[in-house]
Amino acid sequence: MEERLMRLGTLCTHSFKAHLDRVRLKTSKLTERLWIDYPEAVAIVPMISENEIILVKQWRYAVGRETLEIPAGKMDYGESPRDAASRELLEETGFGAGEFNLLMRYYPAYGYSNEVINLFVAKDLVKKGDLTAVHEINKTETLTMESLFAMISAGKIMDAKTIIAISSLKSRELF
Amino acid sequence: MEERLMRLGTLCTHSFKAHLDRVRLKTSKLTERLWIDYPEAVAIVPMISENEIILVKQWRYAVGRETLEIPAGKMDYGESPRDAASRELLEETGFGAGEFNLLMRYYPAYGYSNEVINLFVAKDLVKKGDLTAVHEINKTETLTMESLFAMISAGKIMDAKTIIAISSLKSRELF
Repeated sequence: MEERLMRLGTLCTHSFKAHLDRVRLKTSKLTERLWIDYPEAVAIVPMISENEIILVKQWRYAVGRETLEIPAGKMDYGESPRDAASRELLEETGFGAGEFNLLMRYYPAYGYSNEVINLFVAKDLVKKGDLTAVHEINKTETLTMESLFAMISAGKIMDAKTIIAISSLKSRELF
Repeated sequence: MEERLMRLGTLCTHSFKAHLDRVRLKTSKLTERLWIDYPEAVAIVPMISENEIILVKQWRYAVGRETLEIPAGKMDYGESPRDAASRELLEETGFGAGEFNLLMRYYPAYGYSNEVINLFVAKDLVKKGDLTAVHEINKTETLTMESLFAMISAGKIMDAKTIIAISSLKSRELF
């Protein structure tokens, strides 16, 4: 147990915050904890066929590079994980899905963030239009599970949520 | 590509920072990016036998709960990933290792953090003393790979680095 003694500062965007807290550790030592207070989030494995996934290319400011990853995003206030997955999939790829199955819920970085990701597998995809998240997503790309797994093993995809999705499906012998 | 126009604020601890930046997106839209500037880090899968792993129990302030996870920590300035893995393993478990093999490098949360984790498998473990990271670690626990995999599948372990480690080893048929 670690006890908050005082809030030293906060930085805010419209959708999440960073807090710096003065904290007493279980050993009575005093220290600071800097952490991100983040909304619950979703990530989606969009199965466009038995063996193919739609990925998105986007710029990631924190690491200064373009990445290839599964679609994902924050849940809106009051939204269910499934509704958020459906909305994010549509915004980032232009596809709707007939089926969303929750694969896993996990904390990506609880050393400094309370974010929880609800990871879904989406099936029965139907094209509804073009992607609308034009400020974030550059384009989509379709890859087979095997080629994605090979890219992860070769260190070409370094995104935790994509690694967790593909490794979990592979480890459960789902491809 | 997203361009930083101005730094609006920063929060600091002794080992990492959070920055709030004013940014121009590729579409010319202006927005804010709040992100964690974090040192490179390590995580270790300590194989105490062919089929057993040492885990650590610790309090995680950001999520307000005690967790069970593989040992991990930030690299010190100028330290190599391998040396950091060796130091963290000793501090958090009291064990040294004859062998460290890099399994993977990945970004846990590049939506708002530049942290990179170097994930090692440690073998030929030798007890050197008691764990010294007493401000962080409550105790260690040894589990089989199979029981850990079952706990992950049942949602009882929700830590990304532990999930990535175990799912990757399983998906590569290493247990």
